[in-house]
Amino acid sequence: MDYQHFFRSELDALREAGDYREFAELERHCGDFPNANCHNGPGEVTIWCSNDYLGMGQHPAVLDAMHSALDRAGAGAGGTRNISGTTHDHVLLEAELADLHGKEAALLFTSGYVSNWAALGTLASRIPGCVVLSDALNHASMIEGIRHSRAQKLIWKHNDLEDLEAKLAALPLEQPKLIAFESVYSMDGDIAPIAAICDLADRYNAMTYLDEVHAVGLYGPRGGGIAEREGVMDRLTVIEGTLGKAFGVVGGYIAASAELCDFVRSFASGFIFTTALPPAVAAGAAASIRYLKGSSAERAIQKERVAEVRARLDAIGLPHIDNPSHIIPVMVGDPVKCKYISDMLLNEHGIYIQPINYPTVPKGTERLRITPSPVHTEADIDRLLTALEALWTQCQLARRPIAAE
Amino acid sequence: MDYQHFFRSELDALREAGDYREFAELERHCGDFPNANCHNGPGEVTIWCSNDYLGMGQHPAVLDAMHSALDRAGAGAGGTRNISGTTHDHVLLEAELADLHGKEAALLFTSGYVSNWAALGTLASRIPGCVVLSDALNHASMIEGIRHSRAQKLIWKHNDLEDLEAKLAALPLEQPKLIAFESVYSMDGDIAPIAAICDLADRYNAMTYLDEVHAVGLYGPRGGGIAEREGVMDRLTVIEGTLGKAFGVVGGYIAASAELCDFVRSFASGFIFTTALPPAVAAGAAASIRYLKGSSAERAIQKERVAEVRARLDAIGLPHIDNPSHIIPVMVGDPVKCKYISDMLLNEHGIYIQPINYPTVPKGTERLRITPSPVHTEADIDRLLTALEALWTQCQLARRPIAAE
Ligand SMILES: Cc1ncc(COP(=O)(O)O)c(C=O)c1O
Ligand SMILES: Cc1ncc(COP(=O)(O)O)c(C=O)c1O
Repeated sequence: MDYQHFFRSELDALREAGDYREFAELERHCGDFPNANCHNGPGEVTIWCSNDYLGMGQHPAVLDAMHSALDRAGAGAGGTRNISGTTHDHVLLEAELADLHGKEAALLFTSGYVSNWAALGTLASRIPGCVVLSDALNHASMIEGIRHSRAQKLIWKHNDLEDLEAKLAALPLEQPKLIAFESVYSMDGDIAPIAAICDLADRYNAMTYLDEVHAVGLYGPRGGGIAEREGVMDRLTVIEGTLGKAFGVVGGYIAASAELCDFVRSFASGFIFTTALPPAVAAGAAASIRYLKGSSAERAIQKERVAEVRARLDAIGLPHIDNPSHIIPVMVGDPVKCKYISDMLLNEHGIYIQPINYPTVPKGTERLRITPSPVHTEADIDRLLTALEALWTQCQLARRPIAAE
Repeated sequence: MDYQHFFRSELDALREAGDYREFAELERHCGDFPNANCHNGPGEVTIWCSNDYLGMGQHPAVLDAMHSALDRAGAGAGGTRNISGTTHDHVLLEAELADLHGKEAALLFTSGYVSNWAALGTLASRIPGCVVLSDALNHASMIEGIRHSRAQKLIWKHNDLEDLEAKLAALPLEQPKLIAFESVYSMDGDIAPIAAICDLADRYNAMTYLDEVHAVGLYGPRGGGIAEREGVMDRLTVIEGTLGKAFGVVGGYIAASAELCDFVRSFASGFIFTTALPPAVAAGAAASIRYLKGSSAERAIQKERVAEVRARLDAIGLPHIDNPSHIIPVMVGDPVKCKYISDMLLNEHGIYIQPINYPTVPKGTERLRITPSPVHTEADIDRLLTALEALWTQCQLARRPIAAE
């Protein structure tokens, strides 16, 4: 086999399908985010698709904690958690996370991806006979973890309680079960009926595993996520989250009972055999969590910005998914136009919104995923809407009847 | 099923087998490493088991780069590489890595674990009919990646060219093949015959995938690893490494042809669906690599320290694996004594060396894995040897005939 030839032809196929990804090379300006320099684009741009949802990546509380941890403890952890890599900062962060979710314990991973992959993979493979009931729209990291476990998997229709119940009821009551789902789904921005899922879990003796990656920091009086907002954190077996989105740094975790965390800690290859996160990352994340536990101002302003962008889109009839979250998917429904609009936004208007095409979303639902944040200004919103309206007209894309909204 | 009961009984079984892991909670003193405060131990300790092999985690070049990137770009990347998370610092780091290994391109991952898992998983699953020939002692991250791919796997005897050749010869020449191995094996410290493996790969038209995690920064005139030292970097299809050990920060990567990197970039779930490393981490790692390309002083002093510890162990007959690397496995051969010596070193002598027991190493080969670094002093070495000798006597462990060395 000619390996290079194979790689080249696979890449060509991607290009022909319009699915080849090019990365915008950004240089964020700390203190001036959402503005950044786009090195392989037009220079100065405003970012409208970041998952640094609250701008915590430039918050002085976070930066101060990281600077001082760097000076105090150095750059890296220097080892796996077991072999010289557990630092005081990791232990403090895990305590902060357990407290955030009202759980006995928390366990830190190098990313949210690894936390899902390792925790689901370990639970599903190590609990004898475990069946995983997985929401149809679960994130790749959950899917890969479940796949890795080789446990039996049943996929239930997205957010569909009836389908979930039918699948639960068809299994023997004594069989171990794990219901895996998300709170805020990142591409549609819809939210799972967590309490009702917990009711079903109770009825059928299932564990629940909730990915709150797009909710932690953003919902609930202390930023504990949708489950906190709805007062059901204690009903979930595992809450999983990231430190790389609203908390503005990097890393992932699970929060659960002391025994469950200790079990995953003791058996998960993806936890055991890897260098621990730098102490400065742990310190920065802990500072971010602590800050957002005490301040709801950022969440409140974000909500206003989201409502305003939505209202302005409605006013000009631009179609977007009406969901109860902070994520605004503006629907283009065509991969070529989606990419074109994104390119024009970048090059003509200095607005960066990555096009979301297949395979991240189904074909025909190509979209611009807009994430307004407290650091976007009125002027930013004006520029965004003006540009979108002009491009919508230019591309002859359909609008919604304005009154019908 | 009573889930909590299950977790508890599995943890009890670990405890009974002596395999339950307790983490030392350290607070490294930046600038004074290898010294640290052990929060759940005796206070001040000297670390002798860190993988921050050269002390780069406290090097001013690294810390300065991280401080300034924090101030310039903020804490986190704020997105996946595709959706607003590629920063200028990532691009510069990938160029630095490609240059380090003399390859066209490099691709960054959140850790060495993820780089192995994602790259091997993607190559082995996407190349139709690919067979992976995996060294018997490969790291967990490689094993999991190969397992995840569900490709056919053939395990060849550790570092055994005859066995590898027999397995290669038994496969059709046209069948795609990937030989996966490491340069320095972390628990025994032995080194693979890289050139000879490349010869076999050429003869049987196989790709080669070399994990240099325990060698990058440490070997070769610019720290490119064993393959650089032996002048064979260009013969390897993929060189994989970490930024979390000798480079002192965190993260992982592959270096390879532009097409191969682009292929993995385009198809690897573990690369695509996860938040990018913080720009400050990328900047710190790049500074560390750049520094070690230009300075061999740290490597030279490390070599002296390693030779001295080995000579001192030999002088008192303490058994250790004689290998050609910087890793000194002092063999205890009993899990209880290994843990006991480690506890006594910590609590009586202020010396931290994590015991390495099953399942990290085979039963009967329990060991203390010692990693001398340029930041260990003569006095540190004296204290280590005095303590080890006393404990060896106390535990009535066998010594080697001193002259026979
Ligand atoms: C739902 C969901 N879970 C998990 C992850 C992975 O988290 P991280 O970015 O911290 O790896 C993501 C996105 O990256 C996500 O969207
Ligand atoms: C041989 C080998 N490969 C890969 C890894 C993983 O690298 P990282 O710690 O960067 O995840 C390790 C250890 O952690 C290792 O020993």
